[in-house]
Amino acid sequence: MERLRAAFGKLHADAIVVTHPANILYLTGFTGSAALLLVAQDRAVLFTDSRHTLQAREEVCGARVNIAKHGLYRALGQAIRQIRRRGRVSLAYSPAQMTIAQKQLIDAETRGKARWVGAENVVERMRAVKDADELSRMRDAAELTSRVFVETLGFVRPGIRETELSAEIEFRMKRAGASGPSFETIVASGPRSAWPHARPTCKRLEKNELVVLDQGAILRAYCSDMTRTVFLGRSPKRVRQMYRAVLEAQQAAKDVIRPGVESETVDRAARKLLESRGFARYFTHSTGHGLGLEVHEVPRLGRGDRTPLEEGMVVTVEPGVYLDGLGGIRIEDDVVVTSSGAQDLTTASREFLEI
Amino acid sequence: MERLRAAFGKLHADAIVVTHPANILYLTGFTGSAALLLVAQDRAVLFTDSRHTLQAREEVCGARVNIAKHGLYRALGQAIRQIRRRGRVSLAYSPAQMTIAQKQLIDAETRGKARWVGAENVVERMRAVKDADELSRMRDAAELTSRVFVETLGFVRPGIRETELSAEIEFRMKRAGASGPSFETIVASGPRSAWPHARPTCKRLEKNELVVLDQGAILRAYCSDMTRTVFLGRSPKRVRQMYRAVLEAQQAAKDVIRPGVESETVDRAARKLLESRGFARYFTHSTGHGLGLEVHEVPRLGRGDRTPLEEGMVVTVEPGVYLDGLGGIRIEDDVVVTSSGAQDLTTASREFLEI
Repeated sequence: MERLRAAFGKLHADAIVVTHPANILYLTGFTGSAALLLVAQDRAVLFTDSRHTLQAREEVCGARVNIAKHGLYRALGQAIRQIRRRGRVSLAYSPAQMTIAQKQLIDAETRGKARWVGAENVVERMRAVKDADELSRMRDAAELTSRVFVETLGFVRPGIRETELSAEIEFRMKRAGASGPSFETIVASGPRSAWPHARPTCKRLEKNELVVLDQGAILRAYCSDMTRTVFLGRSPKRVRQMYRAVLEAQQAAKDVIRPGVESETVDRAARKLLESRGFARYFTHSTGHGLGLEVHEVPRLGRGDRTPLEEGMVVTVEPGVYLDGLGGIRIEDDVVVTSSGAQDLTTASREFLEI
Repeated sequence: MERLRAAFGKLHADAIVVTHPANILYLTGFTGSAALLLVAQDRAVLFTDSRHTLQAREEVCGARVNIAKHGLYRALGQAIRQIRRRGRVSLAYSPAQMTIAQKQLIDAETRGKARWVGAENVVERMRAVKDADELSRMRDAAELTSRVFVETLGFVRPGIRETELSAEIEFRMKRAGASGPSFETIVASGPRSAWPHARPTCKRLEKNELVVLDQGAILRAYCSDMTRTVFLGRSPKRVRQMYRAVLEAQQAAKDVIRPGVESETVDRAARKLLESRGFARYFTHSTGHGLGLEVHEVPRLGRGDRTPLEEGMVVTVEPGVYLDGLGGIRIEDDVVVTSSGAQDLTTASREFLEI
């Protein structure tokens, strides 16, 4: 809260309105849906509804809880009007997270008293750098996911359906203590492995296919995210070349990671390696992204993101190559930025597995 | 698409910008994230990025696919500018779904040519009434969930953790063909059952506790949502009274459902029954909500929603009573509105189970 107040103070704002659930969780510990958070210099109030009375009482830390009887926006509006007796109240907010309807509601409830100060990623930038407790949770989440990957390899056989395999993976992550998958587990086989964001279907795995397994767990609120690609059978030379190129691209990206390096530099390193192997044009997404309470956070390791990396940031490194018809290969690890470079949180082997 | 064009034509809009993924899925079949849809009277274009090239080609129906090389908003802006050579283009949009940042981006890319026409729930109202194919999917989803509930009852025993039980439930839903749970499965035991939206924790189930099990599956894109509450052991009289009141409230709500009845009337019926039993003030949420591609859709069976029910709508009916300390009881079914009243999709018994 203190860091947040310093941040919006710099914007000459009297207060900040936080609408994004992950930001509210980060600042207060509240895990419910349907909440709004107002942080002023001298107070912080979390607004929620009567379904969450007991939950808010137990979870919320560092903010007063207001169970809004006549709607969250009415209660928020009243609180905003109380910040200043006269004149307008400068409110910092995130344009990427506030809907037009939310802004209209707050304007109506504050009777036009709000002066809006748009500021992106104020809380997200704080969240990007993890403290020791967060890192320990993320290490555990990444280890759990690696362990489950190894455990479920025995199921990766011709005949099993993509959906069955993803059910097995998610079950084992939950049984190991995860509150759930951090995204819908991807099991993409054969031609479908060339879809970077494929959802599992009832398709059965077949011999001589690539299988992309992209899985993550939420453990004590923090996400992991890892991908491995395996081949069912003895792979053709072209596939082995592809795999080697992706693995080298991943290593090249990890090698440039250290505090002070710009995010897009990491992406460029992976892309340059793939270019030298003739695969750059089949690498159709960014090299990675921040990871934490959400599975996609700032920074983005991609063209145009010049955020300097900082010690304590956790990012994914996940180059991939996707050839229509042949299939796709992606290798993804979670790493933490340390003073001496990237340190892997993901522990599963990156060797090419032919099963 | 034809019904949509008629709807925004009435608003005197030249086109509609659709940003909400479930609406895009409904209109085009595209299941990817990161897409924008523009529907004008003479064309429909889905904008997505290069990660989704193959997926869009395979899935999208009824719209042209534009793989935006320089960002979705730039491509969308160009297409909007092309709708009219001169003058401004009237664009229908949903204020509750468009962020301030999205609107600013589109304004910049259309160079101020857009005149915005806010209209809530244009696509959602179409989605509220299900056709025969949708109803058959929803019936299957509800049956699958009921079956899995019965299957997993054997695990509901003192000693199992809430998270283990929820893992078992989600695993079995997926193994039965679901693409995933339609929300994080709720297993809330003892005092935690009084939190309507509790997330499962590592708490173990104990003898003489209420356990609320709230679970749903996504099957062929459509959601189910059901809740049952059981007691571990022989329940005290007070708990049995509570259960009976909630069950009667649910039946009272179902009994008033028929085409033409306003949504809030259904809520009032449940609330009135609970009032007569002295439990109304412990019923802290609405009686139900629409269900379909999303787990919460319009209409809301709650105070202030005067949407008339229509044949083919699918809604949940889920009164609940929550007593701090004692615990909570909720009973929830999915029903379809037919000419002769509410028809249950959920097949599991509503009898009070003492396990």
